[in-house]
Amino acid sequence: MSDIEDRLRSLGITLPQPSAPVANYVPAVVAGNLLVISGQLALGADGKLAPEHTGKVGGTVSEADAKAAARLCAINLLAQAKAALGSLDRIERCIRLGGFFNTAPDFAAIAPLMNGASDLIVEVLGDKGRHARSTIGVAEVPLGSAVEVEGMFLVKA
Amino acid sequence: MSDIEDRLRSLGITLPQPSAPVANYVPAVVAGNLLVISGQLALGADGKLAPEHTGKVGGTVSEADAKAAARLCAINLLAQAKAALGSLDRIERCIRLGGFFNTAPDFAAIAPLMNGASDLIVEVLGDKGRHARSTIGVAEVPLGSAVEVEGMFLVKA
Amino acid sequence: MSDIEDRLRSLGITLPQPSAPVANYVPAVVAGNLLVISGQLALGADGKLAPEHTGKVGGTVSEADAKAAARLCAINLLAQAKAALGSLDRIERCIRLGGFFNTAPDFAAIAPLMNGASDLIVEVLGDKGRHARSTIGVAEVPLGSAVEVEGMFLVKA
Repeated sequence: MSDIEDRLRSLGITLPQPSAPVANYVPAVVAGNLLVISGQLALGADGKLAPEHTGKVGGTVSEADAKAAARLCAINLLAQAKAALGSLDRIERCIRLGGFFNTAPDFAAIAPLMNGASDLIVEVLGDKGRHARSTIGVAEVPLGSAVEVEGMFLVKA
Repeated sequence: MSDIEDRLRSLGITLPQPSAPVANYVPAVVAGNLLVISGQLALGADGKLAPEHTGKVGGTVSEADAKAAARLCAINLLAQAKAALGSLDRIERCIRLGGFFNTAPDFAAIAPLMNGASDLIVEVLGDKGRHARSTIGVAEVPLGSAVEVEGMFLVKA
Repeated sequence: MSDIEDRLRSLGITLPQPSAPVANYVPAVVAGNLLVISGQLALGADGKLAPEHTGKVGGTVSEADAKAAARLCAINLLAQAKAALGSLDRIERCIRLGGFFNTAPDFAAIAPLMNGASDLIVEVLGDKGRHARSTIGVAEVPLGSAVEVEGMFLVKA
């Protein structure tokens, strides 16, 4: 049992079954010592997008729900990382997260919401989880998810 | 004649003259074994943006045209890759595509449209073409292109 | 005194104190020979967002101000690079800039504005500054900044 798995357990997080590839792209690519993970939506443990995590942040989606949605995206990133790597212990560093929030017009307070994803990654990975990030508000996210988060990690080759 | 060039021919695809740098940026950078390509617009073989590939997806641009526009972006990525590498045979893997669709309000069905780019890359590169990707709907794309696609590849140094 | 520091001086640019991490993310990550820098806002040398660099490009923010804002973002990228690397001389190449403009509806002339960032990077880094880039117009940028620019660099390990 690894430290990281222990930390997931102590946080009460069970990684979901990672979503299967649905098209000619894959959830994650390992290239040398880089792991690049496709943008993850705020799907729950049941693989579905809950109504409170669907729609415009600052519109029908509350800030608390948007932050929780970003946390779900980060959990899904870790689920994809585990599927791609076999073990999360192969992660040496989370290099970067990109957060795309589905925002209502004139809602700019998105950086605190992205902390839902950033905090989860650091809670689970510790210092290895401290990452660079970019956060923007976008016009649309696939399926109307309130947020999408992509990730790049440094891994043991 | 390489396998990849053969596949392009059998698909009836002639790579266009890649667009020249128009400012203090370049179409592509090779850094170690990474090739990073600037966001490509849906320019046709004539280097122009056709009216049907210009404007808002879900507005004046149909879904079929948007998917075709994404395919054009992917062809332009390959044209830039060939110009940067000399030969597409130096590509070991398409690591990631980023797709930015110029969307009308409340049009969220963008993932299937991005398959226009993803399918082309896999048709041409085979298993080496299977990539991670992120797809978002944005407020504007340069020149009003219906879509912009950027790419990162693993290459032989 | 390095060439790059000389060039900054001759351009009359003093790198600002880089903004401190405000959450569970960091301004920059060095991973192997990659330096990935978080999206930088158009904060001035005083660490504040000036009114003329806040709001929608093509709306309340003029094109000249938006281009100047992109230049500020690039200066902030260099400040973060220097803080992360110790010296800008460790930069071998600017690989990629990503520019996210906070655009008013139907304002698509964003590529020339991004030259504010691209030109600055090349003025300071010379040929090492010639980068790939992607420019999009987005719905919102944190704090309402007119633009956000992220960067990836190749560095001496």
